[in-house]
Amino acid sequence: MPDTLQTSALEPVLLLTTGGTIDKQYFDAASQYQILDSFVPRLLGLARVMHPFECRELLHKDSLDLTDADRELIAQNVRDSSFTRIVITHGTDTMTQTAKVLLGIEGKTIVLTGALAPARFNETDAPFNVGMAFAAAQLAPPGVYIAMNGTVFRGDRVMKDRARQRFVSRD
Amino acid sequence: MPDTLQTSALEPVLLLTTGGTIDKQYFDAASQYQILDSFVPRLLGLARVMHPFECRELLHKDSLDLTDADRELIAQNVRDSSFTRIVITHGTDTMTQTAKVLLGIEGKTIVLTGALAPARFNETDAPFNVGMAFAAAQLAPPGVYIAMNGTVFRGDRVMKDRARQRFVSRD
Amino acid sequence: MPDTLQTSALEPVLLLTTGGTIDKQYFDAASQYQILDSFVPRLLGLARVMHPFECRELLHKDSLDLTDADRELIAQNVRDSSFTRIVITHGTDTMTQTAKVLLGIEGKTIVLTGALAPARFNETDAPFNVGMAFAAAQLAPPGVYIAMNGTVFRGDRVMKDRARQRFVSRD
Amino acid sequence: MPDTLQTSALEPVLLLTTGGTIDKQYFDAASQYQILDSFVPRLLGLARVMHPFECRELLHKDSLDLTDADRELIAQNVRDSSFTRIVITHGTDTMTQTAKVLLGIEGKTIVLTGALAPARFNETDAPFNVGMAFAAAQLAPPGVYIAMNGTVFRGDRVMKDRARQRFVSRD
Repeated sequence: MPDTLQTSALEPVLLLTTGGTIDKQYFDAASQYQILDSFVPRLLGLARVMHPFECRELLHKDSLDLTDADRELIAQNVRDSSFTRIVITHGTDTMTQTAKVLLGIEGKTIVLTGALAPARFNETDAPFNVGMAFAAAQLAPPGVYIAMNGTVFRGDRVMKDRARQRFVSRD
Repeated sequence: MPDTLQTSALEPVLLLTTGGTIDKQYFDAASQYQILDSFVPRLLGLARVMHPFECRELLHKDSLDLTDADRELIAQNVRDSSFTRIVITHGTDTMTQTAKVLLGIEGKTIVLTGALAPARFNETDAPFNVGMAFAAAQLAPPGVYIAMNGTVFRGDRVMKDRARQRFVSRD
Repeated sequence: MPDTLQTSALEPVLLLTTGGTIDKQYFDAASQYQILDSFVPRLLGLARVMHPFECRELLHKDSLDLTDADRELIAQNVRDSSFTRIVITHGTDTMTQTAKVLLGIEGKTIVLTGALAPARFNETDAPFNVGMAFAAAQLAPPGVYIAMNGTVFRGDRVMKDRARQRFVSRD
Repeated sequence: MPDTLQTSALEPVLLLTTGGTIDKQYFDAASQYQILDSFVPRLLGLARVMHPFECRELLHKDSLDLTDADRELIAQNVRDSSFTRIVITHGTDTMTQTAKVLLGIEGKTIVLTGALAPARFNETDAPFNVGMAFAAAQLAPPGVYIAMNGTVFRGDRVMKDRARQRFVSRD
């Protein structure tokens, strides 16, 4: 049985936000979207999360714009951290690429998630997805996972089907 | 490693809704809140859940009004079902009592959740909690759990602290 | 043409909040609704209102609980104020009664409004109604009005059809 | 006193939607915001509008992309219509230009409005603004108006202050 459930102490979760659709805001002045401050801290507040956590805003990018240096920054933050349970919010377009980069890291449960509609929308998958990832971070054994469209996928066994705008298993 | 993550087939999740604050609606004509149709199916739609699931509306009660017969109805639906991964949405006040009744059931992962604000509110913990429970149902080993306030608790190790309106571990 | 539109100075609007469904919140601890702080100031902020206004929380009651003394308090605040353009948010059940009490007041444009769903709900008529009333306060000649269900009614020519949960004209 | 308030018959309002921020939706597949179906009909439904109206989707453009031919199309729909009370939802950037084009039309109350945040957002000025415009259409004498930021401006006496992202009077 996973450690978290046996001990009375709750193991803290680290959330790293990197941008993506989940954090996109609409700025009328610019007639376009932009990613500034992450909505994730606010989302955890609305969810009345009392579980110990830390939230760190690493990047504010559409995932199509992430560079190798960006992915290495994410990996570094995961690797060098004392946290063993980590959630990463990320754009959905290149989530699997970042998952690949993180595969080698040992001893940590790393769950990537994001959203297909901005968290600031009335109708959005954002809170459900972050909830999924936050639970998966507490329960899954060490490894890399992607929580999207209601499934906690193994991070090396999933792809984004762009045509149908959803995540699916692949062998 | 949990089966769900190894097989390419996704194990379906059964959701049983029983009422509670999560499903409360305000009816101006009656000058009060009532529970009619559950918001949970709609919530899963907004969350773009593609994972196979079935949603069954069992009851529409405030959990303070649940009787022993009601809890036995819930237990029966869990026991007699072919599903091994089950989420139950429930009022928070007597969630631990229902968890107790379900403790004896073997071979199933049963996760209770609910919300402290109705799902139809702008500011609510509902989608995050259902997301947590939906992931926990896929990942946790057989047993009873409660997913509230950001933590997946063991169902026999948690209580609702009414004064502070939150769920906490207990020995 | 109404003065407001001729002068370059904008005439300020006074908002008096008295409670009603528009301000109802759900408190899980009490298993029922309560009216505490009004949502109206926040609603005006979300609406990016730059027009000069003042918002005063007079009461926090379901309108079925308003007494003659309460209605006189409202009338007094209207009468004694230097503002000539006034919006009153109010429960819908006895809105016409309060309108009646205000009919005698001269030289002021008084617009009552409320909502059939709490302002804190995702799906609510609240912001639209307050917008209607805020505009009516600027445009209508002195008198009492009720802005509900998309119509700015004369305050002495409207009633609430309880069965159909809507406001309708009456002779 | 405006006709609407004297007769028992409610004069119907025509809404013409032309696009703008109010109707922008975020499409993850395209990594950008687009304007497809207008949210205005749904907004009127949520507002429980029972007042007679007709809603016509003319255009789906950011107002920076409107051409002279587009503005003439809008003017034509206003001019040729039997409705005398008209609301036009429109992007905020060139709302005053369209107002100018409509200035010559006689015998009709024409109110332009829009929003600085999309109507599909949790936090938006959209419903309040449409409510203002819908009331102004019923109350204001024939002429062109702009309802934004809490004020019903005369259409020839207002400009958008782009730096501060708000509408202000001008001489």
